[in-house]
Amino acid sequence: MKKFAIAIHGGAGTILRSSMTPEKELQYTKGLEEAILAGELVLSKGGNAIDAVETAIRSLEDNPLFNAGRGAVFNHEGKNEMDASIMEGKTLLAGAVTGIKNIKNPITLARTVMDKSEHVFLSGLGAMEFAEKMKLEFANDEYFFVQLRYDQLLQAQKSDTILLDHNEIYTPANSRKGTVGCVALDLFGNLAAGTSTGGMTNKKYGRVGDSPMIGAGTYANNKTCAVSCTGHGEYFIRSVVAYDISCLMEYKGFSLKEACDLVVYKKLVDIRGEGGLIALDSNGNIELPYNSEGMYRAKKSSDSPLYIGIYKD
Amino acid sequence: MKKFAIAIHGGAGTILRSSMTPEKELQYTKGLEEAILAGELVLSKGGNAIDAVETAIRSLEDNPLFNAGRGAVFNHEGKNEMDASIMEGKTLLAGAVTGIKNIKNPITLARTVMDKSEHVFLSGLGAMEFAEKMKLEFANDEYFFVQLRYDQLLQAQKSDTILLDHNEIYTPANSRKGTVGCVALDLFGNLAAGTSTGGMTNKKYGRVGDSPMIGAGTYANNKTCAVSCTGHGEYFIRSVVAYDISCLMEYKGFSLKEACDLVVYKKLVDIRGEGGLIALDSNGNIELPYNSEGMYRAKKSSDSPLYIGIYKD
Repeated sequence: MKKFAIAIHGGAGTILRSSMTPEKELQYTKGLEEAILAGELVLSKGGNAIDAVETAIRSLEDNPLFNAGRGAVFNHEGKNEMDASIMEGKTLLAGAVTGIKNIKNPITLARTVMDKSEHVFLSGLGAMEFAEKMKLEFANDEYFFVQLRYDQLLQAQKSDTILLDHNEIYTPANSRKGTVGCVALDLFGNLAAGTSTGGMTNKKYGRVGDSPMIGAGTYANNKTCAVSCTGHGEYFIRSVVAYDISCLMEYKGFSLKEACDLVVYKKLVDIRGEGGLIALDSNGNIELPYNSEGMYRAKKSSDSPLYIGIYKD
Repeated sequence: MKKFAIAIHGGAGTILRSSMTPEKELQYTKGLEEAILAGELVLSKGGNAIDAVETAIRSLEDNPLFNAGRGAVFNHEGKNEMDASIMEGKTLLAGAVTGIKNIKNPITLARTVMDKSEHVFLSGLGAMEFAEKMKLEFANDEYFFVQLRYDQLLQAQKSDTILLDHNEIYTPANSRKGTVGCVALDLFGNLAAGTSTGGMTNKKYGRVGDSPMIGAGTYANNKTCAVSCTGHGEYFIRSVVAYDISCLMEYKGFSLKEACDLVVYKKLVDIRGEGGLIALDSNGNIELPYNSEGMYRAKKSSDSPLYIGIYKD
């Protein structure tokens, strides 16, 4: 029986019920629902996993609530600097961008790098030059101006530290998370994964996190799984998290759940790497593990109903 | 019995005996010898693997023959844009930089990111701002001006393509290689790996290769191995090559040689990923596999003599 499946995340971190209003919770829930249904529609109509991933992530990027695209946080210079990556499990083709500005949908630029360039990973002004040549949609600074994000920057600059992506309450310990991502399985048995982020509030030095790094933040392989990560990027890079899940399945014969549990609840916890991930195998099994207080997440498949979660269950 | 071991590479590609003069061959051999002996001295005196890696790579960076540091090729804008990464097998700490200019020793900047910042990966102007703050040594454009490299750029621009790093003869099929790297095991049983590159001649769009990517071009873990790659970076990124070697050892029980053989002679060949790597396990076993015509390489350990190779044996 052919089946499809999709999962998304909108970032992990200290997301506490006590600091959320019912209105805000409803907005997040609606944002997650809109994004996953947009991706699901692609799959249910017989579309490709890679298109579903791009579609769902575009929806999250267009939503100012999430730290990616329009809702990207401000860096130290008061700019919205973004990263994204995408990978196709059938061909192992991939595309990624880092340090880009004024691109409306970074995930589409990553997709275009994959489809139209001979490269995998483009950065900074060069990546934007490529975007211009490929006629990608640009947006001005006003589009990316979200008052909450700017207030977060001012708050972070005052204390000279970096700030949590989606928390309104300033908590320096949770200042490096905030990402959106999607994994999908289409009716043809193909997997795909993508991740997009605005990085860290008040970030300096052109810091690159795990989100644009194939193997760390994003990985897809039809033989094993599709993975998109969110969390304290430095730990996810050093642990090569997304590919680690795949290797545990391919080389050690672990199930998706066993691989996710080991990496998120043991290996990352041991090195204090806070965050989570969404993962999907070629049988349509979905895992949404996280070791932080919460993770914006949703899943749906051809034989299971929509699930949306924010806090610890 | 405590032992130490070290291996270096100076890039892989179409390196043919027929296109090499005896003088040139001697220069390369001397360059490799100088670099590995500098690294070995650190180890034999009881120094750390990470210091040996940095020392050997600095020597290769200072040598205009190799595509890293001073000998970095020119990008499309006529600039020398460099990448580097380093990782320590004991702590799994890592540092990496991409898109940096006018830094005399990129590997030392990667090391400084590892030691002195809370990040793993810095890019572009931001990385250079960090370098300035950390008082790294800068060098002006004249220092990086190597006539051969500039001629290569003009040649590549004429045909609007990218050019081999260290070949004097223009061969578009071999235009993406050229890297230096080192892996080391110290007397305390600690592994380390590092990679540094000037990228591709005439490269555009801020392309990032595998060299600065932890997991793809560089990886070290005391439990398994230390790896530094050189080759067609896009394939090495998609295959997460360095971490793949480690996973095959840790999860599948492969020896270093079995893991290297599978990845370099089978998996990479299957997707036409040309290049090679140097790898070292915690028992001091060294592998120098490559599927290209040649690879500048050298190895030495406390119980084996110096070996230097350029062409296929």
